[in-house]
Parts: sequence; C-alpha cells; structure tokens
Amino acid sequence: MVPIVCIVGASNVGKTTFLEKLIPALVRRGYRVGTVKHDVHGFHMDREGKDTWRHAQAGAQTIAISSPMRVASIRSVPEELPLEEVVARYFWDEDIVLAEGFKKSLFPKIELFRPEIEPQPLCSPSDNLIAFVSDTALEIDVPRFAFADVEGLTDFIQSRYLEDRKGPRVLVQLDGKKLPMKDFVQDFIAGGVVGMVSQLRGWKRPRQLRITITLGDEA
Amino acid sequence: MVPIVCIVGASNVGKTTFLEKLIPALVRRGYRVGTVKHDVHGFHMDREGKDTWRHAQAGAQTIAISSPMRVASIRSVPEELPLEEVVARYFWDEDIVLAEGFKKSLFPKIELFRPEIEPQPLCSPSDNLIAFVSDTALEIDVPRFAFADVEGLTDFIQSRYLEDRKGPRVLVQLDGKKLPMKDFVQDFIAGGVVGMVSQLRGWKRPRQLRITITLGDEA
Repeated sequence: MVPIVCIVGASNVGKTTFLEKLIPALVRRGYRVGTVKHDVHGFHMDREGKDTWRHAQAGAQTIAISSPMRVASIRSVPEELPLEEVVARYFWDEDIVLAEGFKKSLFPKIELFRPEIEPQPLCSPSDNLIAFVSDTALEIDVPRFAFADVEGLTDFIQSRYLEDRKGPRVLVQLDGKKLPMKDFVQDFIAGGVVGMVSQLRGWKRPRQLRITITLGDEA
Repeated sequence: MVPIVCIVGASNVGKTTFLEKLIPALVRRGYRVGTVKHDVHGFHMDREGKDTWRHAQAGAQTIAISSPMRVASIRSVPEELPLEEVVARYFWDEDIVLAEGFKKSLFPKIELFRPEIEPQPLCSPSDNLIAFVSDTALEIDVPRFAFADVEGLTDFIQSRYLEDRKGPRVLVQLDGKKLPMKDFVQDFIAGGVVGMVSQLRGWKRPRQLRITITLGDEA
C-alpha cells in the first residue's frame, strides 16, 4: 500500500497551511501526492440541484462524475471507512498519502506544535510520532523541524518513505557510463525533456520516460 | 464487474428526471445502485477555500474526504478515464451502475426519446440499444416502455442484469420447508426484520442477513 503519513496538531495550529507548503515540496521532487481529510460533521461536496446530487437524493449509494480533467465520487457509507480502506480504494498510483488529522490512527504522525495554541503536544513517540514541526524546543526524543524548514522535513519524509520507491530522478548515460549530476541539474534536464515530449501527440504521463539517441560515429 | 446500463437521449429529454424515478424503483427492490455522470466541461465539485480544495491547488493529485456518512474523492487525470475504469475503481459493492449519457460507449443503452425534442433516435440496435423509453411508437425492433412505465422498465432491467445476482429476497423456511410469499409480503417481512436488527449495536448492512430461531417442542 501507498505510505501514509498523518499531519496532526491542535485546531488552528495551521495544518492545512503547512500542507500547502509540504505538498508542492514533494511534487517538485517528482512524487505524486494524495491527501485525505477527515470531516466529523459530514460534508456536502456536491451542490444541491446538480444532477449528481439528484442521483444521490434518489437513492444512489455511490455517484461518480467523470470529465477529461477530473474524476470524482461520493459514496454513502453506514459508518466511517477506516483510513487504510480509504487509501487502498482511492489512491492507486500515488507515491505518498498525507492525511490531515487522524491523530488516533496507528499510522506514522508528524505533529505541528505551537505552545501558544495548545500547551502540550498531542502525541508522544508511543503514538507512532515520527517528527515534530515546532519552533519551540521539546524534550521529546523525535526529530524536530522549524515551521520554515519545509525542505528539511521533505528530506526526512523522502528518506524514510520514498527513497526506496524511486531510483535516480534523471540518469544520463553516455555509452553506458553514468553522467553525474547535481539535483538542480537533474531537475533542469527532467523539466526540459518532459516539457518537450509532453507536447507530442499521444503523450500520457508515464512512470518512466526513456530516450535513447544514437548519434553514430563522428563524421 | 458490476453491470453498467447507459441512459442516453438528447439534451433536455429528461434523463436526470427519469433517473430520479428509476433509481428508487431499483432501490425499493433491494438493489444497490450507483450512477455515473459525464461532464465535458470539467466540474468543480469542491469549493474554493475548503481544505481539500487547498490540497488540490497545492498539487495533490487525488484528495479524499471521509466522514461517518460519506466518503468522497477527486482525482486529477491527464485524460478522461474510460467508463469501465471509473466503474471498476469506484463501484465495488453496487449491484448495478446507471450511467447518464455515454452514448458512444459500448455498454448497453436505454434511449429516452421524445420526437418533440429530437426528430430521430440517437441509437439503433447496432449501438447495443436494449430498450427505448418513449411515448411514441417506433419502427425499431427493441422493447419500448412508456415514460410512466418505470416499473415495467425496472422489471426488464432486473430480469436482464440482476436476476441471477440475487436469490429470493426473503426466504422463510419452517423446519427446512420454504414458506411461499408474495412480493409485498417479502417486502413487509424484510422491512420489519431489518428495521429491528438495524437498531442493534454492531449493525452493519450485510449482503445477507440470516436469523435462525429455535423454538423447541411445544410445551
């Protein structure tokens, strides 16, 4: 199953705002990210009067809507699905799923902590807490990252959950010999090549893109 | 896979309104119904500023939201998913999926036809057309149902796609011997028994509910 990391913390500590930085940091490194949000109140994602809303009102257990850009579904459930079932059902090709909340789950957790919001952290290492994001030192033996250190936390998540899922981002071989490249050069090559190739008819985002160019002997 | 039936017809022929009658007719017979709707324009099911919307804006490929009553997901796709993939992914325990539209798909189709909306039907039997719903006689050799005859069409769908998936709705055996019951008596028994049992702690809607009561010898 896709690795799941829960981003937990007190109300108003800034979980969504932090995810708005963490998600793009992972996406920039080439990972496909999914998110799950818990809603205790029951939500209304569909809009009254829309066709799909009318299907659900008429008794459809599940409705889906499909377009060239997005596909969405809403399912009525007799009780809340366990987080692992939600992830197994809805995330089939993501590299990682970040869950906002779910502090009672057994999945690894990163707690955002601000003492001005809540005097004590919600989690301890026995809750499968793997890191804190806090600008305040804590006497709890897990790694701590400052709120501004999104890249540091991304490194941590990557090394812990993603590294073994991913080879080198860009491998350039010259007659079979690897050309060493720094990360920003890899990003530059990947961006340029994908930017070009994705303009071609028949493009479909692949897991791996490989281009082999035969130049032949020098004239 | 779950059987798929497409409800097709010209714009404004009343597809959603008809589904609002067909869905509850199937639900009343004990079937779990899903629906799929096609949206060429791209839809906005999520609302600007909501947490899940913010996750998607930040680059999450798929977002899900889970509550005790509903679970929903929105996925960005590079191109429209085929109908069969949508159904295979999102409808795992429905008895039937009714697709609104998808007239170019290869799945069985029921066309709603009103000559005042469109002079000629969209489909012919070679398009896997299995029935018309029309108040106008047509010289096309497929069964035709009046718009008011929702029960007749439901019988047709049931006999064609659902009968073999479903045993008798209620089987009452007395010392192993089946007690014959008319449909409305079956409904009455099923409603009463499920109504009681569903009040119990630990209730979760089953595929089959079986109650065995041992009365012993008469005192």
